[in-house]
Amino acid sequence: MWKPDRAAKKPIYQQITDYMERCISFGEFPPGSILPSERKLADLLGVNRSTVLQAYDELRASGIVESVKGSGTKVSKLKWGITPSQTPNWKQYVEGGTFLPNLPFIRRIREELRKGERIIDFASGELSADLFPNQIIRHLMQKQPFQEQLGYEDPQGFSPLRESLVSFLAQQLNINTTDSSILITSGSQQSLYLITQCLLSPGDAVAIEDPSYCYSLPMFQSAGLRLFGLPVDEHGINPEDIITLHRQHRIRMLFLNPNFQNPTGGILSAERRIRLLEIAAELGIPIVEDDPFTLTAFDGNPPPTLKSLDTSGNVLYIGSLSKIAASGLRIGWLIAPQAVVSRLTDARQQMDFGLSGIPQWVANQFIKDGHFEQQIILLRQALLHKRNHMIQGLQSILPDYITFTPPQGGLNIWCNINREFDDFKLLNEAIKRGVIHVPGSVYGSDHRSIRLSFARPHIDDIIPGLKLLKEAIQLISS
Amino acid sequence: MWKPDRAAKKPIYQQITDYMERCISFGEFPPGSILPSERKLADLLGVNRSTVLQAYDELRASGIVESVKGSGTKVSKLKWGITPSQTPNWKQYVEGGTFLPNLPFIRRIREELRKGERIIDFASGELSADLFPNQIIRHLMQKQPFQEQLGYEDPQGFSPLRESLVSFLAQQLNINTTDSSILITSGSQQSLYLITQCLLSPGDAVAIEDPSYCYSLPMFQSAGLRLFGLPVDEHGINPEDIITLHRQHRIRMLFLNPNFQNPTGGILSAERRIRLLEIAAELGIPIVEDDPFTLTAFDGNPPPTLKSLDTSGNVLYIGSLSKIAASGLRIGWLIAPQAVVSRLTDARQQMDFGLSGIPQWVANQFIKDGHFEQQIILLRQALLHKRNHMIQGLQSILPDYITFTPPQGGLNIWCNINREFDDFKLLNEAIKRGVIHVPGSVYGSDHRSIRLSFARPHIDDIIPGLKLLKEAIQLISS
Repeated sequence: MWKPDRAAKKPIYQQITDYMERCISFGEFPPGSILPSERKLADLLGVNRSTVLQAYDELRASGIVESVKGSGTKVSKLKWGITPSQTPNWKQYVEGGTFLPNLPFIRRIREELRKGERIIDFASGELSADLFPNQIIRHLMQKQPFQEQLGYEDPQGFSPLRESLVSFLAQQLNINTTDSSILITSGSQQSLYLITQCLLSPGDAVAIEDPSYCYSLPMFQSAGLRLFGLPVDEHGINPEDIITLHRQHRIRMLFLNPNFQNPTGGILSAERRIRLLEIAAELGIPIVEDDPFTLTAFDGNPPPTLKSLDTSGNVLYIGSLSKIAASGLRIGWLIAPQAVVSRLTDARQQMDFGLSGIPQWVANQFIKDGHFEQQIILLRQALLHKRNHMIQGLQSILPDYITFTPPQGGLNIWCNINREFDDFKLLNEAIKRGVIHVPGSVYGSDHRSIRLSFARPHIDDIIPGLKLLKEAIQLISS
Repeated sequence: MWKPDRAAKKPIYQQITDYMERCISFGEFPPGSILPSERKLADLLGVNRSTVLQAYDELRASGIVESVKGSGTKVSKLKWGITPSQTPNWKQYVEGGTFLPNLPFIRRIREELRKGERIIDFASGELSADLFPNQIIRHLMQKQPFQEQLGYEDPQGFSPLRESLVSFLAQQLNINTTDSSILITSGSQQSLYLITQCLLSPGDAVAIEDPSYCYSLPMFQSAGLRLFGLPVDEHGINPEDIITLHRQHRIRMLFLNPNFQNPTGGILSAERRIRLLEIAAELGIPIVEDDPFTLTAFDGNPPPTLKSLDTSGNVLYIGSLSKIAASGLRIGWLIAPQAVVSRLTDARQQMDFGLSGIPQWVANQFIKDGHFEQQIILLRQALLHKRNHMIQGLQSILPDYITFTPPQGGLNIWCNINREFDDFKLLNEAIKRGVIHVPGSVYGSDHRSIRLSFARPHIDDIIPGLKLLKEAIQLISS
């Protein structure tokens, strides 16, 4: 975005005045709307708050904006020769809509990370930039000319990519499928979104793990679903709980992440896995298996997926390149019976007209030429190394505060803090000190937990980050 | 998708039997589900229907499938040792969900076009492949290495792309905006989807042009909106109609396509444009300006957009590369007040986590280096040439059946047929003959109209296509 020119003759506060005046006259801030707070604008433009204050004073002096007690600085209506009823009530529109906004915690975390300041990031469930296959992707794009069409791609996904996935999934995960059972999506997120929008109706009861990534997604509430939790212990969920829940609420779908579960890192035990499939089949409840992490298994032996054990099409399987190769490709896949794939393909076309062919073409080159396999091998080593580093750090720096089970795959360590504390306060104190995590309550947990990603921060930042976190914990629990 | 190997020793019907058995055992067709009809599978695999019949007989003989009167061939449940209640009722799931499927006409048209057989395509509102900037895009991807990050892109869109759009829109369309007012979307479709999901609530009344592209989009109904039509004459809608509608139904939003309207091709007159903005401002109703075609103005003088006349942020402006450069990049933009952009960015992140950085990077190179401007200049000439060709064809081949107003921009000619006819029959007869159009009823029109795209077919196919269309019209109106 625009930044003041520090080399220019015109004083910075005057540049900001001019810029805001331009924004207002272009309709970015319509009459009656609230300008960003002085602190926020100062953050965004990288200037002192007093400079913004001076700019806002100028705007006020010229009558373009006015101060409103308790709600900050507002764009004047009178100046524009229109009466209050003559401009859409944008506030009302923005606060309406069936689709719910993200959780305040999530928005807060994203805002902090977007500022671009130096903060040690234990929050993002994403690889650090050095773990992306940057060189390879760049090379793939240059080596071979992009010869595909530039028209709308097949709405089910680029066909060669679906074929490459069939071979890859069979080899790496023993998942047998056909290209016509695969829908290419904009990451797992879109698979989940399509399922909640197209296969379920408002009022439907669904069961999810507790704690679970699903709790962090208001899309379930936006679709009007009733969520019921299946408590997770060290062997995953207890399948018998499904029977009880089903009796009480008529469960319509199960959303599970059996391997290296997000956030706990746990693995559903082999016995429970079998029993889960039996129960789901008996009750006729489909399972959505969200599987971002199986391939990261640090020992190189991925636990079996539910899909690989499913022969009746009871499991809708969701995978993606995001967490283990490059999130920026926005390539995920859903494996489902053909009727489901057709329904979701049709709906997706109405929402965004399908994915661009270019990242799909890149993803296909990446998978079919063995680069993905290679990436997984390197990634396992790198993640194990980072995990060990974080474990050592936790054990040496925070032994009095935190207990955890070392995860055997995935990107996160789920930490239990053995003190009373306030989620919100801890996050604030951590951010103040330059480190950030995800509070456990985001995942629906009522335990005193936090999720720490060891994949995202630079390895050299892990120990310093934990030290800062310790300060924050000490402060709020003293 | 899989095709039988004609060179193999194994008979084709046997290959199909094996393939279908595999699909069934992988869960693509779960127990109890219906297999594709013999005709459909024969179409898909490019074989005779009798060959599929033979394969299905084999499957039936082995007990894997069974015939069910009136509903075709069904995967057996008993064979799998499970009782009917033990597998999810996929049919019920697929027919549920809040999100409505596409219109049957649209699905029919897409199905025909997906077959990949030779059909003259007057239906797709898209450029023909030779009008895409193929060479340039390929060159851009190879010339400069992709140095951007492979992590999640800024959810509001790649920042340099937003900055390039600010300059481009100012130069080409007199639209003044800021990069922070722009949201990059997966084409116009996603902009519309986000607006209907996030700014409007079920039961809200919205006004759209009649006929209108909006009628072809079940997303309005999916969001529970009540649609009211504003009749379009040769000068566009009549703004006074909005006052009447608003009095009766309290209109919450206007969805308009003022320039080279889809499907009629008309332009909202200058006086009505001014009056429209006055009325919308007086009533405080925001306008969504869907603007896919303004830049195609054949005479090189684009009519003004509503956005360029709007200084109070009453207009949400939607543009895209899809219709005028390359639909396969999936790059569109929404210009809106900052509060709206933030709300939609947050929601979009929950739906698909944003767009891949790669096509955004390509789009930026394309726009900032002047290629887009160049593309527009070439495109205008090419479209005018194709339009003239189609006009001559209509005048010489169909003068007794069709009347139309020559459009001054856009991709389509809106044709009125001066006979009684049945939309569905005409489409069927046209398809039988190897030509395809969009029936007027898709756009909510109760006139006897069809939309013909002159942009999509190869220029040499336009005259033959119109001849086939004439046969179809003659047949159904005789």
